[in-house]
Amino acid sequence: MQNDLVLGIDIGGTKTSFGFVNRKGVVQGGTVISTEADNPAEAFVIRLHQHIENTRKKLSPGHRLIGIGIGAPNANYYRGTIEKAVNLNWGESVDLVALFRRHYNLPVSITNDAGAAAIGEMIFGGARGMKHFIVITLGTGLGSGIVANGSLLHGASGFAGELGHVVVDPEGRQCGCGKRGCLETYVSANGIRRTAMILLARQNIVSGLRSLKYSQMTSKRIYEMALAGDAIALETFDRTARILGSKLADAVAHTSPEAIFLAGGLSQAGDLLLEPTRRYLDTFLFRTYRGTVKLLLSEIKTGNGAVMGAAALIWSELASCGENAMT
Amino acid sequence: MQNDLVLGIDIGGTKTSFGFVNRKGVVQGGTVISTEADNPAEAFVIRLHQHIENTRKKLSPGHRLIGIGIGAPNANYYRGTIEKAVNLNWGESVDLVALFRRHYNLPVSITNDAGAAAIGEMIFGGARGMKHFIVITLGTGLGSGIVANGSLLHGASGFAGELGHVVVDPEGRQCGCGKRGCLETYVSANGIRRTAMILLARQNIVSGLRSLKYSQMTSKRIYEMALAGDAIALETFDRTARILGSKLADAVAHTSPEAIFLAGGLSQAGDLLLEPTRRYLDTFLFRTYRGTVKLLLSEIKTGNGAVMGAAALIWSELASCGENAMT
Repeated sequence: MQNDLVLGIDIGGTKTSFGFVNRKGVVQGGTVISTEADNPAEAFVIRLHQHIENTRKKLSPGHRLIGIGIGAPNANYYRGTIEKAVNLNWGESVDLVALFRRHYNLPVSITNDAGAAAIGEMIFGGARGMKHFIVITLGTGLGSGIVANGSLLHGASGFAGELGHVVVDPEGRQCGCGKRGCLETYVSANGIRRTAMILLARQNIVSGLRSLKYSQMTSKRIYEMALAGDAIALETFDRTARILGSKLADAVAHTSPEAIFLAGGLSQAGDLLLEPTRRYLDTFLFRTYRGTVKLLLSEIKTGNGAVMGAAALIWSELASCGENAMT
Repeated sequence: MQNDLVLGIDIGGTKTSFGFVNRKGVVQGGTVISTEADNPAEAFVIRLHQHIENTRKKLSPGHRLIGIGIGAPNANYYRGTIEKAVNLNWGESVDLVALFRRHYNLPVSITNDAGAAAIGEMIFGGARGMKHFIVITLGTGLGSGIVANGSLLHGASGFAGELGHVVVDPEGRQCGCGKRGCLETYVSANGIRRTAMILLARQNIVSGLRSLKYSQMTSKRIYEMALAGDAIALETFDRTARILGSKLADAVAHTSPEAIFLAGGLSQAGDLLLEPTRRYLDTFLFRTYRGTVKLLLSEIKTGNGAVMGAAALIWSELASCGENAMT
């Protein structure tokens, strides 16, 4: 129906965004609140529900809310839970879907944030019409959502697609997960900062990065320095691209996607990251796959993107039940 | 029907096996012929057809042949082709399904040999009832078939699941594919021989392997030496298990299977390979997946296993079309 809306919610460690998304991907009532993740999840949902209802009053009165889609760290699609999320002080496992059902007698789905980004790309972005693709979200860490045969992979555990934790070097950088050398310790906003620091320490080359404190050395600053021709910043991007290209080649050897999309803050580096990553991907790709996979930037705008992705969870479920969500 | 049979064909570089497989997985008329892969594929299919018909005459007269399943190197499920297979001198691409259709007006399906092994495990072996699992075939090389949501992944290219060519070390051992450091150059019958050779060269430890020529140093001999307590042979298995465990942990981070099955000749090393691989897999596994994945030996016997797997392709297609192949 023309006035059907899905509530999309993106839960993060510090902020939670929500909005009402129609089947074209247009977001109404976009709102951001503080997650206050130190308080219990019950209190969070009660507070969020009040904000949602306040916002909902301002929407056109003829709308019909048909479902709620949620993207969150460490979310389990099968169980409807968030489990052991490092940035949310909600314990071993909290049944978020059940908490929402106390307020809404509607379909509620949850999946991890990168999975929601993949569904968003499929329903509203560059992956429309694709059956096999991967979305890599490059933020503080590295997340991924893998779509095969038109469905987001959840796997046996409900947590499939954690490419941030494939191993680059078993003796490598310490990762927040307790392992060493995970991909996200190299390829992420934080990883790129670590790479720049190490290159500054190893090499004697003059670099504008030497005048920055650790806390100032954001991926954005490194990006700006690289654009200005700074040799250390350029090498930082090249090394990042090489590791990413190599691991994307491995990912292709698993599910053979038609395209890989880069999303999230660091992907805004654009060609500076995309072009060398394409080159290294091609170098490391098993010959059978050459020419079968494209590396692209996400077509979902950051900002409302996470909310669109979360809402797309519900739209995609409607589509797979026989109703075509795109008509 | 009780008398329905599927013709299963396993095409290899030197030998081709076929047999008639009922829905319980019982193989009748198992036959092995020489592939003669230097001759054109047309001649191969004509010759194979004659052997098939000769064998078929000996089957019970009441049988009904309902389809043909083929496992072959570099087979493309979507196109019905074998493409650029190194051990088959059949050029860029040969439409094997079309060649079989000249002789049989029946459903004909082809997939790569490790994919067929995965389908065989699902229909007749240890993966019965599983929706998400991986089969790793350890022969001269390393093959893999990945099942997600109950379906073998083919991906966009039709060649998904080439874990033999994920990269262990970009500066590592030369691989037949043209790259360096591919997993199968370390973990395979041939890879384990290379590891033993390198350890013999690097270390001064006394070892029975020093009395063997390169051509005698098969994985079977290394296995026997390891059982007898040979230090180099034992370290060879340990290093092989460490690399395999690490890459299986990465595979779990992609599709999160319930189980990974080891199949093929080298898997007959049993606990000598399985036990340390389990340990390393657990070490490298991202914490979210701990306790969610089992490492098991294939329950499909080698010998007729490849023929059963090829036939299972057709049985699984019948099952997914609504008819339950197991009843």
